[in-house]
Amino acid sequence: MHIGFLGLGNMGGPMALNLLKAGHALTVFDLSDTAVANLVEAGATAAASPAELAQADVEVIITMLPAATHVKRVYLGDDGLLANVRPGVLLIDSSTIDPHSAREVAKTALAQGNAMLDAPVSGGTGGATAGTLTFMVGGAPSAFEHAQPILAAMGKNIVHCGGTGNGQVAKVANNMLLGISMIGVSEAMALGVSLGMDASVLAGIINTSSGRCWSSDTYNPFPGVLETAPASHGYSGGFGTDLMLKDLGLASEAAKQIGQPVILGALAQQLYQSFSAQGNGGLDFSAIINLYRKDA
Amino acid sequence: MHIGFLGLGNMGGPMALNLLKAGHALTVFDLSDTAVANLVEAGATAAASPAELAQADVEVIITMLPAATHVKRVYLGDDGLLANVRPGVLLIDSSTIDPHSAREVAKTALAQGNAMLDAPVSGGTGGATAGTLTFMVGGAPSAFEHAQPILAAMGKNIVHCGGTGNGQVAKVANNMLLGISMIGVSEAMALGVSLGMDASVLAGIINTSSGRCWSSDTYNPFPGVLETAPASHGYSGGFGTDLMLKDLGLASEAAKQIGQPVILGALAQQLYQSFSAQGNGGLDFSAIINLYRKDA
Amino acid sequence: MHIGFLGLGNMGGPMALNLLKAGHALTVFDLSDTAVANLVEAGATAAASPAELAQADVEVIITMLPAATHVKRVYLGDDGLLANVRPGVLLIDSSTIDPHSAREVAKTALAQGNAMLDAPVSGGTGGATAGTLTFMVGGAPSAFEHAQPILAAMGKNIVHCGGTGNGQVAKVANNMLLGISMIGVSEAMALGVSLGMDASVLAGIINTSSGRCWSSDTYNPFPGVLETAPASHGYSGGFGTDLMLKDLGLASEAAKQIGQPVILGALAQQLYQSFSAQGNGGLDFSAIINLYRKDA
Amino acid sequence: MHIGFLGLGNMGGPMALNLLKAGHALTVFDLSDTAVANLVEAGATAAASPAELAQADVEVIITMLPAATHVKRVYLGDDGLLANVRPGVLLIDSSTIDPHSAREVAKTALAQGNAMLDAPVSGGTGGATAGTLTFMVGGAPSAFEHAQPILAAMGKNIVHCGGTGNGQVAKVANNMLLGISMIGVSEAMALGVSLGMDASVLAGIINTSSGRCWSSDTYNPFPGVLETAPASHGYSGGFGTDLMLKDLGLASEAAKQIGQPVILGALAQQLYQSFSAQGNGGLDFSAIINLYRKDA
Repeated sequence: MHIGFLGLGNMGGPMALNLLKAGHALTVFDLSDTAVANLVEAGATAAASPAELAQADVEVIITMLPAATHVKRVYLGDDGLLANVRPGVLLIDSSTIDPHSAREVAKTALAQGNAMLDAPVSGGTGGATAGTLTFMVGGAPSAFEHAQPILAAMGKNIVHCGGTGNGQVAKVANNMLLGISMIGVSEAMALGVSLGMDASVLAGIINTSSGRCWSSDTYNPFPGVLETAPASHGYSGGFGTDLMLKDLGLASEAAKQIGQPVILGALAQQLYQSFSAQGNGGLDFSAIINLYRKDA
Repeated sequence: MHIGFLGLGNMGGPMALNLLKAGHALTVFDLSDTAVANLVEAGATAAASPAELAQADVEVIITMLPAATHVKRVYLGDDGLLANVRPGVLLIDSSTIDPHSAREVAKTALAQGNAMLDAPVSGGTGGATAGTLTFMVGGAPSAFEHAQPILAAMGKNIVHCGGTGNGQVAKVANNMLLGISMIGVSEAMALGVSLGMDASVLAGIINTSSGRCWSSDTYNPFPGVLETAPASHGYSGGFGTDLMLKDLGLASEAAKQIGQPVILGALAQQLYQSFSAQGNGGLDFSAIINLYRKDA
Repeated sequence: MHIGFLGLGNMGGPMALNLLKAGHALTVFDLSDTAVANLVEAGATAAASPAELAQADVEVIITMLPAATHVKRVYLGDDGLLANVRPGVLLIDSSTIDPHSAREVAKTALAQGNAMLDAPVSGGTGGATAGTLTFMVGGAPSAFEHAQPILAAMGKNIVHCGGTGNGQVAKVANNMLLGISMIGVSEAMALGVSLGMDASVLAGIINTSSGRCWSSDTYNPFPGVLETAPASHGYSGGFGTDLMLKDLGLASEAAKQIGQPVILGALAQQLYQSFSAQGNGGLDFSAIINLYRKDA
Repeated sequence: MHIGFLGLGNMGGPMALNLLKAGHALTVFDLSDTAVANLVEAGATAAASPAELAQADVEVIITMLPAATHVKRVYLGDDGLLANVRPGVLLIDSSTIDPHSAREVAKTALAQGNAMLDAPVSGGTGGATAGTLTFMVGGAPSAFEHAQPILAAMGKNIVHCGGTGNGQVAKVANNMLLGISMIGVSEAMALGVSLGMDASVLAGIINTSSGRCWSSDTYNPFPGVLETAPASHGYSGGFGTDLMLKDLGLASEAAKQIGQPVILGALAQQLYQSFSAQGNGGLDFSAIINLYRKDA
């Protein structure tokens, strides 16, 4: 299949490579010449602009961009995708943005005859490279069916979340909960250890009790509890504090727009913000436990 | 084995019955004549006072009391257990109290020749009746070995958490995390549903993602998501809001004593307090989601 | 002086009337024909569009709009003020918007030869009618001097806050603090009364102690303490909860953009949001005390 | 008048000296020989124990102790004041403790014929030395009238707050509000300055607007705004973070006992706790602004 791919950064680059590996023909665009060159070397064709990419003979266009402003510009701009794409081409945006913007763009696309899916991912750069991402997909069932085999070349868990925007809703809701849980685990571990418990023993008990969660059993923030977790490797790699901050910002913004309180979510956002302001934005988000550890 | 059991309430009563069923001889005490009569009918012997219970020819004494003030009075009072028990008798307190008080009582017991374990439980009245409680046990390894087969008659998961007080530490840390997680799940579910997602679809995605936790996959607070959860039965039964409030109070108090911040823990305590002050203290703690649901 | 006035709502309408009373000639625009008719009846001239208003022979243009999106559209739109105004006309925006947007618009205006001031107000519709508003003004000193006598026709306290955007900064910082203080006073009053104190006695002590603040001594949220406060009149009139919510949203958004934590500010926003979601958005913001009063 | 004074620490010492200066005869007790020697040198008589002090021919006994445990021991202990004092002696406790304990002790005192007042102070060691303390007094009007001239030798503002315990209630409510306001001012100042405002200009605007409060106009936490504030002197002197932490602990504990939510109060407590855990417990509490200042 001939696919257009726009946005070849840390996530988009390896995702596009996996599409090539799966045998698809790719026309690509990015502002970075280096990023484009990498893909061309691997067999892709370069487009000189989003407009040229949209006018190429593609069946599907996938975008992977940093924020809603980029998505709006790329899709809705005068020289953007919607102004240049022919009806019938399926549009898939894998950027993580707020549900409201996702719905706004998709509505415009649909009105001119282009089905559109929001399909944000989780799994990080590791999952992008390994092709093991999770895609949370919002949009019409027929479009989802069309997209599924393509997304399957880049991920192993492709979930239909319902109508347009619901992929973004699922991601934002899950990641807000993740941000809260990680601080909850951090407080519980720090409290238990300060009160005299061994960290691994405490984690073991939590992991078989009602406090059990992914932040405790798979990604424990206390160093040494899990060999594979960033906590055991100086909080390098993983999911950066500033990325978590971005997702919590999307969650609280989406909540504000509909007048929905998210009390712990908003406080968690502030705590990661404090931690980032102290110069820790590049550390894995589980390093937030250092706000609580006197011995750290 | 001859065991003394003091405190025959909603939890202690069925626990004592399970000891009888396992073939142990029991001498029991409670302020409630009815509670004592139930056990006597089942084969136990009644003691007229804690002192008389302590002076009976028991090898082990188990206590199950509402709060630290009761534990201190029963153990340390002039007519209490320590003033009357002979050296060598193993003492097991299954009450949920703060670690500091647990260590204070155990230290006094040890000084006069009585090993003591703190062994708070989780599993509720259902687990007490079914004999499937989890015991989180703090104290010397030899005492733990001595106690294990006895506790196994009342529970199925007997965990050694380390030295004296660590059973209480484990419980308080786990339950603080639980209290936070439940609010986190409530906010995520309420946000997602308000933004247009189906509750069960959202729960399904969270349960296979990084937001996964016991509060989401086993005890989801959104009605209809899990048939077995209190949320699907009017938030009756389960673990009451006021019990959660008690445990969060123990956590923040223990944290205060050692100068350990527990920011989300303290905020969670306030939110359950607000919910209880509105007359909801008797509802299962997962009903806290009603603070967030406009449609509820 | 000939002044253009755009935005004749609850605030802008009476402000424009005060300019007429002070002897200025006014050309006005609003989407509401009724609002325009009111001003025309009082002596103003109607413009058919923002463009026409900008092309009238005005020396100063004042805008009073609901939010940043309106301000951007009115100033930066293809048919907007900047595209049609002649160089040298002083622009004054009295809308309450985020400092970032205010600076963005002012920068564009300045680049084409129009000095611009941000001049948000406090004092509510009462102050707008009485001409007793406070203006917090950001922009060049020369522009401030030019504007001062004009603003003095609408307010009695005209404060220069520094360079462009600083009027918005001052307002957002003050109102975030106000939102926090009001909840602080509410908690202190509710706690003291629940513990047995008379509300007026407690307020009297606070007002002569270190807890003293405007929310306590001028606008006390406990009914009956101050005859003139909305609390003594069913929380009607005053400054609505949803207006406070808007200002807290501006504060947290401005903070997010620069990575500045505002922990109590964000929590206060969530508490007003909860209160509004329960249907209280139209009550004076001091009604937030009802979140805390069991006797209310 | 012959007065007994027990507790001659940083506060009690200078308070007792002021009573001597006013011409009263003093019998004093403290565990510290040095503290006692200072008072004896100034003209007081030393008692060898609380019991001896109680048995001296005193008309009034004043106590100034660190916490409720000390108050309970000194008043209710077997060798304590109540066991040894003759009926009719007026008892005044100026310690800052929780209202519940204050009422418990006063009730016992009254039952044996000793009127008792709780009379906690504000004003710090400076006020204690200068004799300018504020006394917040709870108890019967007749006892208050009896005490007033005595207290007036140590303070300049003697306020009757109502029945027994209400002095503690007033102090705890006021200081909780103070702790919240100071963080609110810190966030507002840090936000405004980060967004480009001059700190003194911002403080000036707040101080004439609805954000006005003691923490802003009398004790501003931003260095350089007020020459006399601890912020302008390295946050030395003043009211220590750990003292604020103690008062917030009393407030949240008193609230917990009656099931009263204090949401911002509890979060403020956690933030001072975090700040103290980082080694700042000895700094003036206004140093909490350093949690928010990137430039500090």
